Amino acid sequence: MKKKLLKTILNQIFLKHKLSKNHSEICSNYLIKAEVLEAKGHGLARLKMYCDRIKAKVINPKPKIKIKKISNSVSCVNADNSIGFVAADIGIKQAIKNAKKTGIGLVGVKNSGHYGLSTFYAEQAVKKNLMVFCFTNGPPAVAPHGSKKSLFGTNPICFGAPTGKIPFILDTSTSMINRGAIRRASKLGQKIPYGVALDRNGTITTDPNKALKGSQIPISTFRGSGLAWMVDILSGVLTGSSHSGKTKDPFDDFTGPQNMGHLFITINPKIFIGGNFLKEMKINVSRIKRLPKAKGFASILYPGERKNKTYRKNLNKDIFIPSKILKEINYLNAIK
Amino acid sequence: MKKKLLKTILNQIFLKHKLSKNHSEICSNYLIKAEVLEAKGHGLARLKMYCDRIKAKVINPKPKIKIKKISNSVSCVNADNSIGFVAADIGIKQAIKNAKKTGIGLVGVKNSGHYGLSTFYAEQAVKKNLMVFCFTNGPPAVAPHGSKKSLFGTNPICFGAPTGKIPFILDTSTSMINRGAIRRASKLGQKIPYGVALDRNGTITTDPNKALKGSQIPISTFRGSGLAWMVDILSGVLTGSSHSGKTKDPFDDFTGPQNMGHLFITINPKIFIGGNFLKEMKINVSRIKRLPKAKGFASILYPGERKNKTYRKNLNKDIFIPSKILKEINYLNAIK
Repeated sequence: MKKKLLKTILNQIFLKHKLSKNHSEICSNYLIKAEVLEAKGHGLARLKMYCDRIKAKVINPKPKIKIKKISNSVSCVNADNSIGFVAADIGIKQAIKNAKKTGIGLVGVKNSGHYGLSTFYAEQAVKKNLMVFCFTNGPPAVAPHGSKKSLFGTNPICFGAPTGKIPFILDTSTSMINRGAIRRASKLGQKIPYGVALDRNGTITTDPNKALKGSQIPISTFRGSGLAWMVDILSGVLTGSSHSGKTKDPFDDFTGPQNMGHLFITINPKIFIGGNFLKEMKINVSRIKRLPKAKGFASILYPGERKNKTYRKNLNKDIFIPSKILKEINYLNAIK
Repeated sequence: MKKKLLKTILNQIFLKHKLSKNHSEICSNYLIKAEVLEAKGHGLARLKMYCDRIKAKVINPKPKIKIKKISNSVSCVNADNSIGFVAADIGIKQAIKNAKKTGIGLVGVKNSGHYGLSTFYAEQAVKKNLMVFCFTNGPPAVAPHGSKKSLFGTNPICFGAPTGKIPFILDTSTSMINRGAIRRASKLGQKIPYGVALDRNGTITTDPNKALKGSQIPISTFRGSGLAWMVDILSGVLTGSSHSGKTKDPFDDFTGPQNMGHLFITINPKIFIGGNFLKEMKINVSRIKRLPKAKGFASILYPGERKNKTYRKNLNKDIFIPSKILKEINYLNAIK
């Protein structure tokens, strides 16, 4: 489908679900961006879920989002159960402002929901010449080291820095795969890779439905589990949001809002060495890229480069929508 | 050896190597602490190296360390090529002060050296009721994803938070094993675990000497490589220190100072939800500890608990020193 047409349809759908024009635009843009980035687990496969949650009154389509200034560096955003995209968009913009003023910004967002890719927000900060951390937790997906029951979300760690060219953006879940990818495989009847998830008996499975009922494998066992726990504290406990497995799964649990938390830390990279920062970043990247390549590698890419290539490759292409998801879109758009 | 006697000897050795009384105390305490924590790769096995570097004039025993205030939250420490322990100790204390004043502290340390365990510094911040990140880079040990040559250090990620009881301290290298453990195995003629390092041809090896000439394996391939790159940017590029493989190996390369960088970020965890933070942290920890256990696990520990147990177990015990390292100590102590 043409992106322009898709955007019109998505906007219509969100408007029908009582979102403001501005919030509809924000949501449509991020959903399309996920598709262009081929992060399809965060794209159109989630549209019906968002609409279902609005209908079930567990997402607030008309949130009164409040930004509270705690200091020149620190702000708190109460998202009033908005769609995560909208809350996180406000949050990162505030974190950018704060760092521009003081050199360092810290913004906690509470009463929010799933916000798509951390990359969306990191990129905005990097384009304003800032370094950035984005943290968010999620519904139970990964068992803490020593337990056989899922509790942590896939809790990504996202870090961005300007390079003078394509932004350096590391956006890695602390699990072997993100949950959206398993959800989408389930929806489309596909398998998931071997070695990323266990069924409920603790056996490795490639069946996405069994994986959803079991647990995902953290990266490097206790290390990944510890990193996921860190993200749970930063985005959940610190911000006053749900944590330790209490974030509701947006697809399955309509008993209340997700009350998810996000944390953004922004840093002016010139704070210690001024303009030399970009000079040194360029040296850093070029030294590493010049290293001898391992077997099977033609080049060494820094985090963010591959996503950027994908983005540019797809930017002027139509978006392929599987028939099952297209049916959902048509259904949602036909609602009076 | 009795800890009291060991401390007297270590102090004597550092004093003979021209360190001030205060700096000698700091270094002796951290070396002994590493032994008590059974992080022996960061303990006495490094003593001779520190002394050799002082003799070779690539560590400055009488540094004029300067702390520059950039804002109420941000400071820069120029360590004047001091031993890393001393510089990092000053850095974390400044980061604690800054967060106490403003809610968030950011301290960059440059012209420093290997500082032992990040845990040492994280613990200090947590004991002052702060959250903390500690980042430091190191000499080449890990090949970037796509390369066959080591460039990143084992670049640990360290995060601490108060729990009301034992501090939560995640201190994980972004490689499968820390380099000190390989160094120590090499010194003592021991093997290293399977699956943590490659020889120079890219084959897995359990021979520490081959591993030192080859490369260490990052956690979860491209994810660990990305995290190591992040730490290189934060502690190296941002602070104006060595980066992208230019940090000299302290054991092998005496051609100049290490010029290592450290970055400390401190956060008042009450900044968003006040006294509820500790209440929620306790809920967080107890919910996770109550989860059903996986096979072979009697309990679920949070990061830092095991180290704390080790510390308490060893606190009143003598320190076992392998004869090879004891010889080094006796030699250094006999120097006039």
